[in-house]
Amino acid sequence: MTYRILDTVALRTWLAQQPELTDRLGGEAADWAIREVSDGNLNTVFLVQGTQGAVCCKQALPHVRVAPDWPMPLERALYESRYMRTVAPAVTGLMPELYAYDAGLFLIVMECLTNHEVLRSALIADRALPGFSAVIGTYVARTVQATGWVGQPFETGARLLEQFSGNTALTRITVDLVMTDPYRICERNPEPEAGLRGDVRRLQTDRNLHNAVGRLQGRFLSVRQALLHGDLHTGSIMLDGSDVRVIDGEFATMGPIGFDCGLYLGNLALHLCAAPHKTTMIRHEMQAFWNSFSNELRASLAQGGGDLWALSAVGSRGDLIGSFLNDILRDTAGFCGLEMIRRTVGFAQVSDYTLCATHDDRLLARQKALQIGQTLIVEGPSLQSFNDVLSLMGL
Amino acid sequence: MTYRILDTVALRTWLAQQPELTDRLGGEAADWAIREVSDGNLNTVFLVQGTQGAVCCKQALPHVRVAPDWPMPLERALYESRYMRTVAPAVTGLMPELYAYDAGLFLIVMECLTNHEVLRSALIADRALPGFSAVIGTYVARTVQATGWVGQPFETGARLLEQFSGNTALTRITVDLVMTDPYRICERNPEPEAGLRGDVRRLQTDRNLHNAVGRLQGRFLSVRQALLHGDLHTGSIMLDGSDVRVIDGEFATMGPIGFDCGLYLGNLALHLCAAPHKTTMIRHEMQAFWNSFSNELRASLAQGGGDLWALSAVGSRGDLIGSFLNDILRDTAGFCGLEMIRRTVGFAQVSDYTLCATHDDRLLARQKALQIGQTLIVEGPSLQSFNDVLSLMGL
Repeated sequence: MTYRILDTVALRTWLAQQPELTDRLGGEAADWAIREVSDGNLNTVFLVQGTQGAVCCKQALPHVRVAPDWPMPLERALYESRYMRTVAPAVTGLMPELYAYDAGLFLIVMECLTNHEVLRSALIADRALPGFSAVIGTYVARTVQATGWVGQPFETGARLLEQFSGNTALTRITVDLVMTDPYRICERNPEPEAGLRGDVRRLQTDRNLHNAVGRLQGRFLSVRQALLHGDLHTGSIMLDGSDVRVIDGEFATMGPIGFDCGLYLGNLALHLCAAPHKTTMIRHEMQAFWNSFSNELRASLAQGGGDLWALSAVGSRGDLIGSFLNDILRDTAGFCGLEMIRRTVGFAQVSDYTLCATHDDRLLARQKALQIGQTLIVEGPSLQSFNDVLSLMGL
Repeated sequence: MTYRILDTVALRTWLAQQPELTDRLGGEAADWAIREVSDGNLNTVFLVQGTQGAVCCKQALPHVRVAPDWPMPLERALYESRYMRTVAPAVTGLMPELYAYDAGLFLIVMECLTNHEVLRSALIADRALPGFSAVIGTYVARTVQATGWVGQPFETGARLLEQFSGNTALTRITVDLVMTDPYRICERNPEPEAGLRGDVRRLQTDRNLHNAVGRLQGRFLSVRQALLHGDLHTGSIMLDGSDVRVIDGEFATMGPIGFDCGLYLGNLALHLCAAPHKTTMIRHEMQAFWNSFSNELRASLAQGGGDLWALSAVGSRGDLIGSFLNDILRDTAGFCGLEMIRRTVGFAQVSDYTLCATHDDRLLARQKALQIGQTLIVEGPSLQSFNDVLSLMGL
């Protein structure tokens, strides 16, 4: 179908022509309750409730939803649907089920998570049931196992490089917003509050920091280890009690495994800066993430099945696994630092800072996030254990 | 045109229907002298001499030419033609000019290098004019500059990942023949001569070596820095005096820059093992390669122009460039070692060993190549300078 921006009327008409979806919804088209719930920066999202079931419809817009003068290719919906298809078998129950993808409308129709709440909101409202991070660790390890040459013949990764390398419009956002803009004068950066101007100037003039950012940028662009979610922050995760789902895979690209880990941990660390009284809970979540991620990945690395390390028998892979996990750890620390800085002073900042009771608290929270972020970026390459990461965060 | 294996008759008929090529050849089709000169392992090659000009025609066969029961997808010709088109603007005069590519026949028509000789043959016959390695160093540096994120926006590399990651049939050869088979019992490995059996057994049982090979395999499959030639041995280079051309880019894939460097140096080192009296000449060539490669790459890294290190001003990139070149050096050493071993005991060994006057000389030459190869693979990650590489080779 030719692309056009759907409103609730046009969506109802389209859905009524899809037998599989009408069966799922039940009743007549006129009976369906359709409401727009767009929340992210890029797309429109509708929830459709029928008499028997519900679906969630997500359509790409030709521009950034929250910045209409910023054009954005529609193909991101194609990459998101590909991502869901690729990783779904490995993470059943940890992401919404994909029901349909319309290539002309750039429209994804998926499982409706009616009772779920975005993790970031749940954290801010102190409603998140502890333990969610262990699920995210499992999620990342399983996507790595399914898409990297660790557990697969190298041809699997080669096909994914063919399928996902074209997702340059969204990767460009990452290269610019995460790895470049916060460290230079750039009109996309919001004007910093007065108290933060000195910190921002230091970010823009610290050569040592710029070199370290350059190294991470080099790793992001060249170390193609596995298929990344690519935007795994606490706004890309939904919760309903202990049911945890990862959404919004439109940034999917082959990249360094530590990128997904770092973005996730970076968002927990940002929350902690804004809510320092939650130290115990956040430390627990971070440790749970890393334990579940590294234990599950370690088990799959020991088991093998891919081209990697085919010569090294299961019993003699200890050294290889250790140094591989250490490389991931170092990347994780660096990308965590990048995320903390870009979400504090760059475009698209986190709402966690609204938790700060006073202006001074907020300023201190932001300064702390910038300081931890810089330390992680610069010190990342010399870290030896996850405890080192926690220490640098003051945990 | 539908695929069929061309003989001289069918090739003449096809050429006669290509106006651009008949203009280039001159005269009537009946006047053209066509002879088959197939020499490599995979394809058939014809030289066509017309009354005014000449062309070289290279057709992919559906199997390995020298092993007809080993099927091989025809698409390798597509990747070779893509490689030539991609790098040609950066290496004008250093590779044959591509005249035409027929997608149905998997046929490449290119500049005919009538007076050129394969570098390996020239080395064996002691006819190579010194200094050729400096040209190869320039060639590799320029292909890196044209295809990596070093000198290009990252989107350039992303497009190349899309275009070349499908070349899995040839990459599979590299993964198997270079990085796996020599280190395990495998029926593709030729039976080693009696005196070498102990050495081969050690290659197949050395855990430390296997771990180091696994690390290099991991880098080959995941570190996608630039478009590689992928098979840059002395049989992929032709000389006519000081005119040096690189041919046979069918193994092209995005990979670690040190892979091309290591294969080239590995073949020089193999030649030295077989002809130890040529120490001075080979040391000179190796140094000339590394100097021209690293100086040209250093200049382009300092200049920038790509996304990489966009934050670091030209004057403050010294550290980044130094550590980047050091990473390439370490990869170079490791891949050099892999090449030396696979060309000594694996499938498709080098003819340089025919230079050895006696059976004992040849055995010693091979043992030396295996020893140097293993040392480079294991010690590679700790090397600091190109002198360290030369030292490990006894130079």
